[in-house]
Amino acid sequence: MNIGHRIGYQVSDVSHTYFQSFNPQLNEKLPELICEITAQEIEEAVNKAANAFCLYQKISGAKKAQFLKDIVEEINLKEQQLIHLYCLESGLSIERAKIELTRTLLQIENFSNLIQSDTWRNAVKEKADMGRIPIKPDLRKGLFPLGPVVVFGASNFPFAYSTIGGDAVAALASGCTVIVKSHAMHVQTSDLMADLVLKAARKNELPDGVFSHLNSQEIELGKRLVQHPKVKAVGFTGSINGGKAVMKLAQERDIPIPVFAEMGSSNPVVILASALEHDSDKWSTLLCDSIVNGAGQFCTKPGLIFVLDNEKSNEFIKQLREKLFYKDFHCMLHPQIYLNYKKIVQERALKVEIYSKSGDSKPNFGIQAIGVCSDAEFCHHPELQEEVFGPFTLVIKCRDIEKLQKCIAKLNGQLTGTLVYKDEIVSEELIDLIHEKVGRFIFNGVPTGVEVVKAMQHGGPFPSSSDSQYTAVGIDSIYRFTRSVSYQNCPENLLPEFLK
Amino acid sequence: MNIGHRIGYQVSDVSHTYFQSFNPQLNEKLPELICEITAQEIEEAVNKAANAFCLYQKISGAKKAQFLKDIVEEINLKEQQLIHLYCLESGLSIERAKIELTRTLLQIENFSNLIQSDTWRNAVKEKADMGRIPIKPDLRKGLFPLGPVVVFGASNFPFAYSTIGGDAVAALASGCTVIVKSHAMHVQTSDLMADLVLKAARKNELPDGVFSHLNSQEIELGKRLVQHPKVKAVGFTGSINGGKAVMKLAQERDIPIPVFAEMGSSNPVVILASALEHDSDKWSTLLCDSIVNGAGQFCTKPGLIFVLDNEKSNEFIKQLREKLFYKDFHCMLHPQIYLNYKKIVQERALKVEIYSKSGDSKPNFGIQAIGVCSDAEFCHHPELQEEVFGPFTLVIKCRDIEKLQKCIAKLNGQLTGTLVYKDEIVSEELIDLIHEKVGRFIFNGVPTGVEVVKAMQHGGPFPSSSDSQYTAVGIDSIYRFTRSVSYQNCPENLLPEFLK
Repeated sequence: MNIGHRIGYQVSDVSHTYFQSFNPQLNEKLPELICEITAQEIEEAVNKAANAFCLYQKISGAKKAQFLKDIVEEINLKEQQLIHLYCLESGLSIERAKIELTRTLLQIENFSNLIQSDTWRNAVKEKADMGRIPIKPDLRKGLFPLGPVVVFGASNFPFAYSTIGGDAVAALASGCTVIVKSHAMHVQTSDLMADLVLKAARKNELPDGVFSHLNSQEIELGKRLVQHPKVKAVGFTGSINGGKAVMKLAQERDIPIPVFAEMGSSNPVVILASALEHDSDKWSTLLCDSIVNGAGQFCTKPGLIFVLDNEKSNEFIKQLREKLFYKDFHCMLHPQIYLNYKKIVQERALKVEIYSKSGDSKPNFGIQAIGVCSDAEFCHHPELQEEVFGPFTLVIKCRDIEKLQKCIAKLNGQLTGTLVYKDEIVSEELIDLIHEKVGRFIFNGVPTGVEVVKAMQHGGPFPSSSDSQYTAVGIDSIYRFTRSVSYQNCPENLLPEFLK
Repeated sequence: MNIGHRIGYQVSDVSHTYFQSFNPQLNEKLPELICEITAQEIEEAVNKAANAFCLYQKISGAKKAQFLKDIVEEINLKEQQLIHLYCLESGLSIERAKIELTRTLLQIENFSNLIQSDTWRNAVKEKADMGRIPIKPDLRKGLFPLGPVVVFGASNFPFAYSTIGGDAVAALASGCTVIVKSHAMHVQTSDLMADLVLKAARKNELPDGVFSHLNSQEIELGKRLVQHPKVKAVGFTGSINGGKAVMKLAQERDIPIPVFAEMGSSNPVVILASALEHDSDKWSTLLCDSIVNGAGQFCTKPGLIFVLDNEKSNEFIKQLREKLFYKDFHCMLHPQIYLNYKKIVQERALKVEIYSKSGDSKPNFGIQAIGVCSDAEFCHHPELQEEVFGPFTLVIKCRDIEKLQKCIAKLNGQLTGTLVYKDEIVSEELIDLIHEKVGRFIFNGVPTGVEVVKAMQHGGPFPSSSDSQYTAVGIDSIYRFTRSVSYQNCPENLLPEFLK
């Protein structure tokens, strides 16, 4: 059976054009045929989302919380099948699939708990003062959902940042309706997940259009969705170029809308002398694991490592290289991602010294590599700071701490920055420089491993995020999809329930 | 003595080009010569702001609060002179000047109180769990200032939305440094105010560059400031075209920055049948005052009034017209604003019936006018919904409530929307339609009169604001100039004080 779109509760497959997703491990197309989308279907999905929004936005928090709980239940029933499809389409391991699914369920549960009560909507009430001249009015302010939200599935997080991942669940929790554009690389995983979300929606008798799921391998679908006048916000996780294109489309509209894009990051790690003096072995092991984890396809992979140029750091680089090369080759998400990775490492090799693990890899298996350059080379070639999506890191050997700080000052915005040291006194200037560039500042750790808690900030200065004022992880991410409205002297019977 | 720029604590006047501000009441240029800005001076001001930011952002809340308190004290000492210059340059009345100054002082005091403690910075602390596998890290998140902020002075609020108005004081309170581009129409008022801010800064030994004040009548100054890589955010109050131009400049940067622009709004008022049945006289009086207040140059002036077409509403229009015409002509802010007003009313007269007060007005004195059209005409000419800056309102006579709702559905985003009714049952659809379009929803009142309280939302969907997720009035406006940063496993001695 061909895979169609889910336009609200209805499955639609009117087009006679098809595409297929891909098994990167076996390097072959999967047999299932996925329907391309038509303009008519996009229009229907958006109209349904807009109509459903009128009703869904007013449904109580408790009822929405139950909807999210039921999604968790549906997912648990189909865990095996979800993980099977995930591995098939992403080339990632079963262990990774399980961890990611657990995290996805945790995210949904966190939002379900958050919206049980309306506290998160930050009601502020200012009483009238009839004695004041002029009379002071009664004013009540609180958060309301924006409207239909478009979510782009992410290549590297088929569960946690796609169909009912962080963006989609935050939007649904806030009271927005959601249209997911599935990622073309894992449509089958996404379609099954969408089916489960819709089962939970039906069970709660939610309006038709609260959630839709559309598939395409062309850019036209995303373009039409972002430009549709009835769409009010966008969630995106992907490359800088992809994110910038979406931002441009959103800004060019007659009525611009916010885009919450989580884009590339190189996650600089600064290792000071004392750490390599004592713990070179420990840090080379931890960083090696952080670099190759998920074939280096995490947005928080440490892609830049700054050290002081001395004997100890040469030793550290050697250790890191050996440990990286000791690891197996890792299957990447898709041939295109594999080829991009290969190409960018080759380009880097024209500018800096590159060491790659030797031997032949299977098709789509990324060959881990490490680059080494000086602070001068790093500052001379601004492209060296750009994210390399795959198992690669660049070590920058800096002549002294001033040169190191000069490199940090040249960095673009980053999701994370890490400082590793043991017992020296860290200069305030260095701390300030890293702080300015990042959304999360890690001390003596590695950047991979993103806790799903309220204290998490996942989103740093541009271009790591389109809007550093919001987080994409944790319950605070709900605020991306809301705006405040004040009600002035509103009669009790017309006041929104949570402002009474 | 010529008026120079205030580049931090230094007064600078290197250019030999000058301009003058204007007395609209007497229709003549003011004698004082104001230095034009040079590229070099802009560069100096931004560099000072960036350097000062490194220090100022870490100064305690209590010390910043004292700085704001001292600004209030300095302003109180120069109240007479400020009001004199304000009236001279704006053509507005002494009463209006006094009300606006009181409001400005209240705003500063509110922020001073807010930042006495760090509660507003929303610290969230998540303890480490060493027993978990993998170990759960210690995570602490809180709000930090963005960096140097550029504030554009507003033509219609020389005190409350200019030099140390809502944007500037919110930015300073958050820990950002500020560069004000004075509004060319009231540079003298602004320069005196800037002097007072700097006196308070000096008294508190704040770093040179915490506040700068630059003057120009060319657009180049604003352009350079918005595009400068060291500038991190912009506050703007003005026209839709002006705001859009600033947004475009900010988006075209290599590293885009947020623009918080409060732009035009027509502030629709819907009057249902019951209100005109019983209280036509009351509402025509209240609305008349709201329309001509400040010569109709408020961003919350009711510019569109929707009524049902019947005998009662014809009577109401007649009353409103008579009351409007009974008022004196009002001096507008500047000849250019007066001419724009005259032109746009003439353009409207080509499309709808216009009634203007007869008689000759002095130069720059706006002639109050009222337009009347049908719902069909309103829907046919989208430009009829655009803001008219001046003492004009358009009454739309709607055939029935469905037609009225159709008009509302066609509206762009608005700062406010008002519903006036007495005893009929209001349809949920109408409430939802107005809610969707506005930042503040007023019942049985008029939109002018913006309370400076936490429950206030001043900012609605585009184009009334560039970002409907924030408010430009009230202490919550501080959040525009901040972003969250998480500190992971940060040693106590390196943690920012409020995260300890």
